[in-house]
Amino acid sequence: MTGNTAPSQADARRTVISVDAMGGDAGPAVVVAGIAKSASKNPDIGFLLHGPAEELEPLVARRKTLKGRVEIRDARDVVTMEDKPSQVMRNGKGTSMWSALESVRSGEADGVVSCGNTGALMALSMLRLRKLPGVNRPAIAILWPSRNPQGFNVMLDVGADVRADAEDLLQYALMGTSYIRNSMDLPCPRVGLLNVGTEEHKGRAELKEAYALISQNAEKANFEFVGFVEGSDIPGDIADVIVTDGFTGNVAIKTGEGTASLLRSAIREAFEYSILSRLAALLAYTSLSRLAKRIDPRRVNGGVFLGLNGTVVKSHGGADATGVSAAVKLAFLLAEQGFAEKLAARVASAVELAQDDATSADADAPGDSETGSTN
Amino acid sequence: MTGNTAPSQADARRTVISVDAMGGDAGPAVVVAGIAKSASKNPDIGFLLHGPAEELEPLVARRKTLKGRVEIRDARDVVTMEDKPSQVMRNGKGTSMWSALESVRSGEADGVVSCGNTGALMALSMLRLRKLPGVNRPAIAILWPSRNPQGFNVMLDVGADVRADAEDLLQYALMGTSYIRNSMDLPCPRVGLLNVGTEEHKGRAELKEAYALISQNAEKANFEFVGFVEGSDIPGDIADVIVTDGFTGNVAIKTGEGTASLLRSAIREAFEYSILSRLAALLAYTSLSRLAKRIDPRRVNGGVFLGLNGTVVKSHGGADATGVSAAVKLAFLLAEQGFAEKLAARVASAVELAQDDATSADADAPGDSETGSTN
Repeated sequence: MTGNTAPSQADARRTVISVDAMGGDAGPAVVVAGIAKSASKNPDIGFLLHGPAEELEPLVARRKTLKGRVEIRDARDVVTMEDKPSQVMRNGKGTSMWSALESVRSGEADGVVSCGNTGALMALSMLRLRKLPGVNRPAIAILWPSRNPQGFNVMLDVGADVRADAEDLLQYALMGTSYIRNSMDLPCPRVGLLNVGTEEHKGRAELKEAYALISQNAEKANFEFVGFVEGSDIPGDIADVIVTDGFTGNVAIKTGEGTASLLRSAIREAFEYSILSRLAALLAYTSLSRLAKRIDPRRVNGGVFLGLNGTVVKSHGGADATGVSAAVKLAFLLAEQGFAEKLAARVASAVELAQDDATSADADAPGDSETGSTN
Repeated sequence: MTGNTAPSQADARRTVISVDAMGGDAGPAVVVAGIAKSASKNPDIGFLLHGPAEELEPLVARRKTLKGRVEIRDARDVVTMEDKPSQVMRNGKGTSMWSALESVRSGEADGVVSCGNTGALMALSMLRLRKLPGVNRPAIAILWPSRNPQGFNVMLDVGADVRADAEDLLQYALMGTSYIRNSMDLPCPRVGLLNVGTEEHKGRAELKEAYALISQNAEKANFEFVGFVEGSDIPGDIADVIVTDGFTGNVAIKTGEGTASLLRSAIREAFEYSILSRLAALLAYTSLSRLAKRIDPRRVNGGVFLGLNGTVVKSHGGADATGVSAAVKLAFLLAEQGFAEKLAARVASAVELAQDDATSADADAPGDSETGSTN
């Protein structure tokens, strides 16, 4: 392992983010450009950067803003997008992804960001960081642009696991509400369970079971359950947290992204159609820039892995410097707020609740008094 | 039943579309406005209109273009959006929806259009029109805007049934390719199976089984199987037909619709932001109109029920006159092309194929020679 000035020594107040430099579609140069962007905006952040030292050193040296802010951790191997998670779990010890997670596990870093293979990152995260006690399936949560006042909804799971039973969906509701409380100012978030219709009789059997379970726990866990919601409510304003299994969630967000991307192309084509429309675009420049900024997918880059001992942010594989910087910012904010600890406490209290329910008929027993807190 | 001039008597060449006037969100006035729009554009179309006669007669009388083109069939009851399909199957005999389907069953009409309750419409369609021999689960197919040269992809199932096993998914591939051949000029459509990734090892077990089954049948059934596709490929250009179960498909299209609708609002807001941006919008008027037309969801209104003895088109419940007219046009085109018969032949040949496969190891037996035809 090679290192220059360790950021934690250089400035004790800095929050250290561990970054996997490899595995993104555009290579490590874009990742380094992204952390440089973050470093110039945020003086309280330091980095542990994982990957082949001889590749990373010149990239880092070229960025003045990174001087004294980055420690490079040499890792020779790279997890590719084609690698199977099971292979990476067996043979991935020399990879930058493994090394990046190790820094969180050891306590050297407060969170980790990777642009790499999602399945492998989740598998390694579970292997090295371990699941929180009481969590069966961790989930990936994302922010999705919405009509709500806060501008975004939280949706989970968007691809950690293709299955989810009723118990898992309840845990997603608990973890999702904890996440949105920590990323936005929402004391009592509204939770919706994704289905093909809002009527109670619709959908698959496990969804009806989950409906009952989430409904029972809403008051104690201090969220509002709005019942079944539909795909159109993911960008809507009737729920703040959308709960679903990782198969449905993954297909839904990719469909939404693809449709948004098609629309952006259509906007561009409409204004490049003729000389006259190009002129109109010039005159509409401010309006179009405002629109472009509002619908820029890079602004909300970063899926957060929930249910682990540590904060893991998965950046989009095709992210550019702006996207990487957004993912770093998210990891920083969650680390600053001690989100991992708050989430652990929330899940632990839910486990206690379930045990209380099983052993006592009195839901208002004194031991429950802390469980309504808005962590 | 009340009637004025029967369209089939007035003009023998007319294609008769049976229309359920009730059940749409905006009531029968919008449906009548929609068929009036169709009638004025297309002289070869006649209508059987189902609903309370005293409500429909003045609405029809007010439209000169409908004179002699519409026969009203009195039906007192209405299927609401809240009615359960099972209730409607038991007690729905007096409804406009039942009556509208009956006209197709009796051969008086060549296709049916309804804006009503999707679940009830599918249940009644299965009850009254019956499934095609060899079809286990009928499916709802829609056209989705895409980057393909034809501008649209076919996606199914988008909500007929929340489950689909491997055999069902194969039938969806066969029905979807038949549909796209009849609605666009595509002799050898590309079929993709929706999953959370394109690698063969990903996804649920039934999808891997369906992968093998569809792959085996591609050549004989004259389509190209491109393998697993992701949500982002639904509006993309790597497949023409996207096959999935009705739960996933329904969530995906509603997410796409919701996201597109959010983007349309953002475009509007961007150009209404200030006096200057309103002025820019004025100057960009032609470009914006071109864009609005391209992304207008009403242009492709209409889910087609595949796998039944007869053509059933489900219009969006919230459709306006333009939307209803688009659904009528779709029903007309499919009826003109004898689509229901072609689809029946296609499914029958697939059943034969499967039987051949089971009884003979020789896939090139003479009896197979017709099955590659592009119906």
